[in-house]
Amino acid sequence: MLLRMSSLFLRTLRDDPADAEVPSHKLLVRAGYVRRIAPGVYSWLPLGKMVLENVTRIVREEMNRMGGQEVLFPALLPREYYEATGRWTEYGDTLFRLKDRKGADYLLGPTHEEMFTDMVKGEYSSYKDYPVTLYQIQTKYRDEARPRAGILRGREFVMKDSYSFDLDDEGLKRSYERHRETYIRIFDRLGLGYKICFATSGAMGGSASEEFLAPAATGEDTFVACHHCGYAANAEAVTTPAPAAITGERPAQRVLDTPGTPTIESLVAYVNEHHGLDVTAAETLKNIVVKVTTPGSDKTETVIVGVPGDREVDFKRLEASLAPGEPAIFEAEDFARHPGLVRGYIGPQVLKSLGIRYLVDPRVVDGTAWVTGANEPGKHAVDVVAGRDFVADGTIEAAEVRTGDACPVCGSALSIDRGIEIGHIFQLGRKYADAAKLDALGPDGKPIRVTMGSYGVGVSRAVAVLTEQKHDELGLVWPREVAPADVHIVGTGKDGQIEAATRLAEDLEARGLRVLLDDRSGVSPGVKFKDAELLGMPTILIVGRGLAQGVAELRDRVTGIKEEIPIAEAVDRVVAACGA
Amino acid sequence: MLLRMSSLFLRTLRDDPADAEVPSHKLLVRAGYVRRIAPGVYSWLPLGKMVLENVTRIVREEMNRMGGQEVLFPALLPREYYEATGRWTEYGDTLFRLKDRKGADYLLGPTHEEMFTDMVKGEYSSYKDYPVTLYQIQTKYRDEARPRAGILRGREFVMKDSYSFDLDDEGLKRSYERHRETYIRIFDRLGLGYKICFATSGAMGGSASEEFLAPAATGEDTFVACHHCGYAANAEAVTTPAPAAITGERPAQRVLDTPGTPTIESLVAYVNEHHGLDVTAAETLKNIVVKVTTPGSDKTETVIVGVPGDREVDFKRLEASLAPGEPAIFEAEDFARHPGLVRGYIGPQVLKSLGIRYLVDPRVVDGTAWVTGANEPGKHAVDVVAGRDFVADGTIEAAEVRTGDACPVCGSALSIDRGIEIGHIFQLGRKYADAAKLDALGPDGKPIRVTMGSYGVGVSRAVAVLTEQKHDELGLVWPREVAPADVHIVGTGKDGQIEAATRLAEDLEARGLRVLLDDRSGVSPGVKFKDAELLGMPTILIVGRGLAQGVAELRDRVTGIKEEIPIAEAVDRVVAACGA
Repeated sequence: MLLRMSSLFLRTLRDDPADAEVPSHKLLVRAGYVRRIAPGVYSWLPLGKMVLENVTRIVREEMNRMGGQEVLFPALLPREYYEATGRWTEYGDTLFRLKDRKGADYLLGPTHEEMFTDMVKGEYSSYKDYPVTLYQIQTKYRDEARPRAGILRGREFVMKDSYSFDLDDEGLKRSYERHRETYIRIFDRLGLGYKICFATSGAMGGSASEEFLAPAATGEDTFVACHHCGYAANAEAVTTPAPAAITGERPAQRVLDTPGTPTIESLVAYVNEHHGLDVTAAETLKNIVVKVTTPGSDKTETVIVGVPGDREVDFKRLEASLAPGEPAIFEAEDFARHPGLVRGYIGPQVLKSLGIRYLVDPRVVDGTAWVTGANEPGKHAVDVVAGRDFVADGTIEAAEVRTGDACPVCGSALSIDRGIEIGHIFQLGRKYADAAKLDALGPDGKPIRVTMGSYGVGVSRAVAVLTEQKHDELGLVWPREVAPADVHIVGTGKDGQIEAATRLAEDLEARGLRVLLDDRSGVSPGVKFKDAELLGMPTILIVGRGLAQGVAELRDRVTGIKEEIPIAEAVDRVVAACGA
Repeated sequence: MLLRMSSLFLRTLRDDPADAEVPSHKLLVRAGYVRRIAPGVYSWLPLGKMVLENVTRIVREEMNRMGGQEVLFPALLPREYYEATGRWTEYGDTLFRLKDRKGADYLLGPTHEEMFTDMVKGEYSSYKDYPVTLYQIQTKYRDEARPRAGILRGREFVMKDSYSFDLDDEGLKRSYERHRETYIRIFDRLGLGYKICFATSGAMGGSASEEFLAPAATGEDTFVACHHCGYAANAEAVTTPAPAAITGERPAQRVLDTPGTPTIESLVAYVNEHHGLDVTAAETLKNIVVKVTTPGSDKTETVIVGVPGDREVDFKRLEASLAPGEPAIFEAEDFARHPGLVRGYIGPQVLKSLGIRYLVDPRVVDGTAWVTGANEPGKHAVDVVAGRDFVADGTIEAAEVRTGDACPVCGSALSIDRGIEIGHIFQLGRKYADAAKLDALGPDGKPIRVTMGSYGVGVSRAVAVLTEQKHDELGLVWPREVAPADVHIVGTGKDGQIEAATRLAEDLEARGLRVLLDDRSGVSPGVKFKDAELLGMPTILIVGRGLAQGVAELRDRVTGIKEEIPIAEAVDRVVAACGA
């Protein structure tokens, strides 16, 4: 392949696009790889399409290698499939819905569990048919509330989704492990850095699940890692080690006057100063009221979440814990409708009698004593003991996770980082098979309910994540296998240098390399060098003034190392540099 | 590549699907290549996906070879782009429209002229940048009124669309010719039979246009061909040679009583019997009333079309002639609103005074005399002379074309056939460039309005058309380059035959062939043979009972020729048969 910049449909930009906040968005637009069409909707220009195609090829090769069989579903799907599993409503505003000319309801597929389940049900019937793994590389649609960062979180995006179908839990575990190994190969070949993190299931429903998160400062996901035992988890999935229950006598709870103390800070200061106590925020119990709606239902439930007062509630963790329920902030008018809830002074002692569900942080074990609201304005209670003065309806992972928190596996201190989800593997179990009644006829003539796994790779997103991880201040830096070309040959000046560069390009193409040639006339060497750095091919060969002395310059885009080489050796040297 | 049927996600069906009417739909479903999801919306199973991928690859290679540069647009497009050209409304019900969570209007792209124009405008500015040809292979959406025939006319389908951008008409012609040559190469490589036909422009607006039609009995398009001069045209595009005007005196028109003659047949019989005339249906002038609406406007215009009475009005030709106006039948209640129009007895003599537009067949030249309605119930007029007794507002190609009609080029007799559109090349001109104000800055500093061509290949449709043209009574017959595999090896029986077949398959894979191996146990030889014929690989190798005698059977799926060959030579013989 030989791409000539004199005719390549490519215009680089000197300035960052106004709406771009993250490096991948800035650089992919500046380097002419993608263009914005609408929020979260992008088009791919020739170099971008090549990178997308290279990522697609790697994913396909590895999926085929593991025995996955490629199929292709439409994006335009009739409502009925998603009605059966409840996702037509559960997906809420994130689903693009439309009607056809006859008024029939359709959606643009955000993910295809229902469709794959139905496909397998249509073709397979016997236990002998299983296991099977199917996949597709396809365009998906999600009407994200906050599309952002160019192609990092798009509303139309390319995804590889695969689904395993097994007869028993052991089979599902094997399929899951094979996907895990395949994902490791895919992301290694792509040259992506990643961390495999325990994950929550979100709206999927099911059991074991891991996310491949690419560490990136611009990531929307927070994950914790334990450098002692290797544990890593999405912040939403981090479990809090519960301390042992405390036994032994505690004084009875007492109600104290605490006027003007609606915050934990003011409360701690007040009781320590005016009541002679010596408590910290960690010994107070903060009670957060939320209203929870479930898509498809009109009912709203009031839920109170109790967390130690030194921690904020992490709304994403709260959401993950309550899914598919959707929590929202309890507003002033909600309090007005619940006179039993005294804003700023809520305590759990009365929630049973109010009939409100109360969920507590795992640290709130039986026997722990707390300073908390007394359900009267200006009053708090101390020595409110869990299990004695109130009984929670369950625990919830809603409190923020902090650097230094105890690892749930080994107890060491956790670190916290940001990352971008690039892959997700997930033991779905029988949720979709149950909805579709997907059974295999067993050897004894009895039906066996099939169990499924669901596995995704963000294909278009991977292009952006590679950029986030691999760029430098000069521009893009592509790993060789995804780069649009192996080598960028720059011909500068007028004394036959462009002609010499062209001959080298043709020779290198004949040697099997993918070559990008800057053969533009009337463009200054400085602009050409800047473009070569911006566009990010892994190897750069400059044929400039040195040509008269029989030398060219070989640059490594990653290390920045420059070397003068004899023109006569240039072809062999470039081939060697490209590892071809 | 080695596909083993023991694990391939494939189940063939014994019976035709109930909703299938055409061979490609029946066979592609029976052979397990595609499955229906909704009307005009299909999924691709593994073998189908491979064929689709092979067609895609051929199209991509040929587009790259001609210098086309591949990009990729989203399918989800904001209304504003299509508003500027009027197509948001012009497309009518065929456009899938939807809203996002913020209420903004989007559409699913049925074709991307607007988007490509905008992309070029965004990147290019100087005359030196041109010409350029861009293409994409992408999923498109059209809410067809009558989705039919499986993937032959889908509502979601894969299309290659390309667009050329030139500075002048000569450049556009060159780009058009290069596309024409490329399409010939593409369809030749695909092994498709086709005819290049003059075409109308439909809703595109513009000038020169040709369609590549694949002759097929099930085709929806009608085309004419002249075997004398080579002229071929879509029926909608056939022009009627106009005879020379007739001069000289004709008797004045007379009104005759013709009670009970609302049809041409009854009229001819009546006037010949009761008024001593000797006229044929071809000498009568039939006047058809239609009401024409234009998308985006609420007005309805009444139009009357006059054609010789021996010809029916071809509604598709009428539609093409009136586009973007949409004609509909004039109903009883419409006549009630127009008392001047006497149903069954309409003549053109009064239309001027009624203010109704009158368009005539090109055969109705000045001086021709007609028997036609007298605008009174039960009365017709004779010797009604065009240009004397009425003046039409223009001519229209609306009359049916018949076998034997005169070729507009050489006058020889035309033949008529049915076909399926597989490609369309089209000199758009400046319509979209005008709407987007796409100018190049010329060498003199003045803007040059760019001129465009638009070119399409139905990629998923090509799979169905190949099936329509290439099947036989046993099943599919794939041309080698698009077949899922080069050779289908069938191992039958139990005495080591499947093992021998597997070894041959592995050897052939090592020789670079794409191999489909029937290694299923517990399936009868008869079923395996039937499946091999149904699935349609071009070469079939059967390793059965002959193995004991050291022979296998080599079958050519196209010719049906079977040959016993020594097992020892099987690999070389198959490689030779596959032309590898």
